[in-house]
Amino acid sequence: MSAVPLRNARVAASGVRSVSVLGATGSIGDSTMDLLRASPERYQVEALTANTNVAGLAKLAKEFNARFVAVADPARLSELRAALAGTDIACGAGEGAIVEAAERPADWVMAAVAGAAGLKPALAAVDRGAHVALANKECLVCAGEFFMDRAAKAGATILPADSEHNALFQALASGNRDELTKVIITASGGPFRTWAAADIEQATLAQALKHPNWSMGQKITIDSASMMNKGLEVIEASWLFALSPDEIDVVVHPQSIIHGMVEFSDRSVVAQLGSPDMRTPIAHCLGWPDRIVGRAAPLDLAKIGTLTFEAPDYARFPGLKLAYDALRAGNGATTVYNAANEIAVAAFIAQRIRFGAIARLVEETMNSWIRAGNLAPLSCADDAIAVDHNARDMAAALLPQIAAKAS
Amino acid sequence: MSAVPLRNARVAASGVRSVSVLGATGSIGDSTMDLLRASPERYQVEALTANTNVAGLAKLAKEFNARFVAVADPARLSELRAALAGTDIACGAGEGAIVEAAERPADWVMAAVAGAAGLKPALAAVDRGAHVALANKECLVCAGEFFMDRAAKAGATILPADSEHNALFQALASGNRDELTKVIITASGGPFRTWAAADIEQATLAQALKHPNWSMGQKITIDSASMMNKGLEVIEASWLFALSPDEIDVVVHPQSIIHGMVEFSDRSVVAQLGSPDMRTPIAHCLGWPDRIVGRAAPLDLAKIGTLTFEAPDYARFPGLKLAYDALRAGNGATTVYNAANEIAVAAFIAQRIRFGAIARLVEETMNSWIRAGNLAPLSCADDAIAVDHNARDMAAALLPQIAAKAS
Repeated sequence: MSAVPLRNARVAASGVRSVSVLGATGSIGDSTMDLLRASPERYQVEALTANTNVAGLAKLAKEFNARFVAVADPARLSELRAALAGTDIACGAGEGAIVEAAERPADWVMAAVAGAAGLKPALAAVDRGAHVALANKECLVCAGEFFMDRAAKAGATILPADSEHNALFQALASGNRDELTKVIITASGGPFRTWAAADIEQATLAQALKHPNWSMGQKITIDSASMMNKGLEVIEASWLFALSPDEIDVVVHPQSIIHGMVEFSDRSVVAQLGSPDMRTPIAHCLGWPDRIVGRAAPLDLAKIGTLTFEAPDYARFPGLKLAYDALRAGNGATTVYNAANEIAVAAFIAQRIRFGAIARLVEETMNSWIRAGNLAPLSCADDAIAVDHNARDMAAALLPQIAAKAS
Repeated sequence: MSAVPLRNARVAASGVRSVSVLGATGSIGDSTMDLLRASPERYQVEALTANTNVAGLAKLAKEFNARFVAVADPARLSELRAALAGTDIACGAGEGAIVEAAERPADWVMAAVAGAAGLKPALAAVDRGAHVALANKECLVCAGEFFMDRAAKAGATILPADSEHNALFQALASGNRDELTKVIITASGGPFRTWAAADIEQATLAQALKHPNWSMGQKITIDSASMMNKGLEVIEASWLFALSPDEIDVVVHPQSIIHGMVEFSDRSVVAQLGSPDMRTPIAHCLGWPDRIVGRAAPLDLAKIGTLTFEAPDYARFPGLKLAYDALRAGNGATTVYNAANEIAVAAFIAQRIRFGAIARLVEETMNSWIRAGNLAPLSCADDAIAVDHNARDMAAALLPQIAAKAS
């Protein structure tokens, strides 16, 4: 399986590009729309979707003259219709409408619907062979076992929109897959990078939400503090680029300037750097296989002055280690890893467990899942969704005992 | 002119590669032979040359079963013959024999003859359309105006063996030439990086020879201390990749881990990193368009810990600024820059001028040259060699007044 698209597999690069943005009102959507806004003559917006933000969606739909918009919440159809009154923009609501948006004939689709809900729309875009800029983690973490195969079969191109994976994608252009010796993903280390284990154990929600470099949503910010986010990215990298766990290293780099690196057989390490601004990797996806003009501030290393690096500490951040365990177990274990983490983070936000219990719940759920003989290959979205649901149930059932241990 | 070779312009990558190493007993030659030694089944050594080291040359010739060897010093032919007695290795001596070595039918030629003497042999390899790994600076600094054109006409591929240019070459694989916004060459800053201007002015030879990172010859180490070396590399980058002076930045990076970077239009910066070991860029040249297994220590950023960056200080290192001036003047001015620097460094080694006078002599020679109306396009090796000779004469003539001023 060639997971890495080739540079010369060009699509119609000239003329107007038809694009859809799934998750247009979120943070990735904002960055994407900012890039589209900068060159309106180059893009025709086919479809836009949002989870619940009807006002924001309708505003974007009118600005970009979208052909179709959809809101995930089925109860908001009439609200959406009202907001689009007087336009000829078609619309829909509910999960089916989000998938319909993905099915519409755009050359390029930003798949930025958050969570497990993002899987079916992304697959719909993949199955029709589109260029899919992937910002949704679940497609790879929960469904990587078949997602990349589906893309290969359909001739779809997966463009990694995450800064780390996009960096690897860019660096891989300097060599062939069989010349790669390993990839290195950088991690900011989060707000608890220098904290003692006992302090991390007791960290509050407010402390976990103070990310040093990136402005992101609550869930991902907490994942960054636990380094579960980096674990998810290790899993994603494995599926995206067909890498074994041993071929993926993580290095803590608090300044988040080098986003990812590829070490080749000749000892060259090729890296992608940039200001911490999601518009850069998204611009790379939007322009690929060419490069468009970006919107982030240019990188000024002399002004930044210092970049530092340290090895990750699996003892203080056990969630990162668990990602490797999940990858090695395979057969849905990474789906379990993600599902248990979702339950754990929600419990932490609800102040039901301590910060340090997040990784313990994930570990205990994975162990219980494996002991119960539940590991099995996943071959379709419904498989992945079933494992996700069942693992969430298992994690929820384990929650009280983890909460009790931690107190 | 497309100065950057395309990845898909593959030569016979399978089977045995025929290689010649011009300058086999120098520091670049050592690194090259080390790589060849690691995979003897992959390479047939066609020709090896040395300046004066007959014993070292003969030893390598026997070890690698070379077909032809040449020593630059014509007086050493009988010595070389004696050293090769009992073998069927052909040999020659003198400038013509070095050119003959380059003309012999090797697929790949390392052009590592130092100084202006390296120009004609490199052109001989270029003219027959070889893959030429270029470690000699003069081909580009003194003759860049026609060297790259000659390569393009002959279908030769120039592979930059310098760590900085090799890094740019690797990074450029991530985009197209017209998507490049600038390149950034790193500089260690040399031993005087943190010194006050008055102290640099008075620096001794021993102080100038203490390079923090790279183990290199005397001339290049002094050039690194004055940052004239970086000026020469700016000029080389300009010709190699068809860049205007405004497209080339220098950033001081004392650890010499990031060797070069390319900024693309989308704000991505792609960089090549590696341990400071010439075997890595040489391995890249030797393997290109594939990658072979290198011999340098793998890069361990967590162990290195900190990378720092600062803007270059043209006031304390005026030689770097003069390189941009020479590039902008064109018409042989970079040849004059290099020639005057050679005279200045020799005078500094001979303790005839202070360290600070090196750049003053270069500046004064360039100014006198231009005032005298000597700027003219260069179109062949003899043009470049004539400018080099005449500029050396002019620099030598200006030396007494510069020496007097500085004392």
